[in-house]
Amino acid sequence: MGPKKEDYLSHIAFDSVIFGFNGKQLKILVLEYQNTGLFALPGGFVKRNESLKDAVTKGVMERTGIEDLYLEQFHTFGDLDRFDSKAMERILEMNGLDIKAHEWLLDRFISIAYYALINFEEVNPIPDSLADSIEWYSLDELPPLMMDHEEIVQKALETIRENLDKKLLGMNLLPTKFTMKELQNAYEKIMGETFKRTAFQRRMLATKSLVRHEKLFTGGAHRAPYLYSFKIK
Amino acid sequence: MGPKKEDYLSHIAFDSVIFGFNGKQLKILVLEYQNTGLFALPGGFVKRNESLKDAVTKGVMERTGIEDLYLEQFHTFGDLDRFDSKAMERILEMNGLDIKAHEWLLDRFISIAYYALINFEEVNPIPDSLADSIEWYSLDELPPLMMDHEEIVQKALETIRENLDKKLLGMNLLPTKFTMKELQNAYEKIMGETFKRTAFQRRMLATKSLVRHEKLFTGGAHRAPYLYSFKIK
Repeated sequence: MGPKKEDYLSHIAFDSVIFGFNGKQLKILVLEYQNTGLFALPGGFVKRNESLKDAVTKGVMERTGIEDLYLEQFHTFGDLDRFDSKAMERILEMNGLDIKAHEWLLDRFISIAYYALINFEEVNPIPDSLADSIEWYSLDELPPLMMDHEEIVQKALETIRENLDKKLLGMNLLPTKFTMKELQNAYEKIMGETFKRTAFQRRMLATKSLVRHEKLFTGGAHRAPYLYSFKIK
Repeated sequence: MGPKKEDYLSHIAFDSVIFGFNGKQLKILVLEYQNTGLFALPGGFVKRNESLKDAVTKGVMERTGIEDLYLEQFHTFGDLDRFDSKAMERILEMNGLDIKAHEWLLDRFISIAYYALINFEEVNPIPDSLADSIEWYSLDELPPLMMDHEEIVQKALETIRENLDKKLLGMNLLPTKFTMKELQNAYEKIMGETFKRTAFQRRMLATKSLVRHEKLFTGGAHRAPYLYSFKIK
């Protein structure tokens, strides 16, 4: 059985852009619906008796296994042309679900979108009942996504690129103490550009958001890089 | 007749926080429902055949008379406890509308919130059919707002306070060329704090977002303040 009309708020969906970063590569979690060739962001619907936030947290938890993931709402998508009943019909059909009984899913939906940023090496994604796979895809090797999901990914990228230093701090994406090289690599992968080492270092130090720590004494200490941490404001 | 169920997407509403600033004071547009003592942000519902954005733009245009107002979506509110059927029942009753025929309005709604920033001296607000007044209220003299509308105002304030220099530029809230005093006044009213003149000037110049222009020759030019404009990035 698919989701029942009487249990959910009609016309309201959510989608999640789960960015994964392991210190080197930036990826996104994408699922593929059974026998349809349709790729989509992990999403879901809101039960009548649960808050929007609880619905999203639960939906993402079920696919990632992470209980307390910090999800940030970034935009609500409400265009008329995001509505694609054909795709949903095909998904129901390929899952052997009765179209008549799930007609409410073919109607127009407005989608509230959230993002999260996690280390993909710590997650084993789990497909939901309608999907047969869920995988990490590199940003530059994404399959074509259904409906307006590519637009949702673009908007999520724009959002995390704003005030990235605050977000890297909030999202625990770097170790507590990190080298300038590690920080530069995170910036480059997320911003999608490369920076010159000296210019990057100058720019970061000018933000005054970093604390520089003593070098560890390692014998070969003159070659050890400085470690930094973010200032807690 | 109130809004008909079959014309609208159920469970979806919008609210708008219209900030007004005339160079000196910061106000918010608030409406009062007829004979209820209930104060609310201007809001509305989304028709089945219109985009979310068109619905909001039209709703705000009808209350402000401004055709091409730039509205920025900032958050979607979906908590369980924002749902208050009693208040909506009273509004329908005091407007002589049949409660049975408008039962869909008593159900749970998720609200997508937008803000705009305009000069309140250029706007004559117009109440909608359910409200008997719509007025500009100073931020520190707001009446108690219904449901979660005070939380919506707080979130809107937090949002405009982030990257305020970019927003002042985008929203045409200052004349093209302005004095440092005018800029400081806008900042103080919107941030809700006062700044020292010299520290404010130093901080603004450090952002490198301002261009300084020549003083106008006025005879008493030695006393004329410099004029600035925002750099277009």
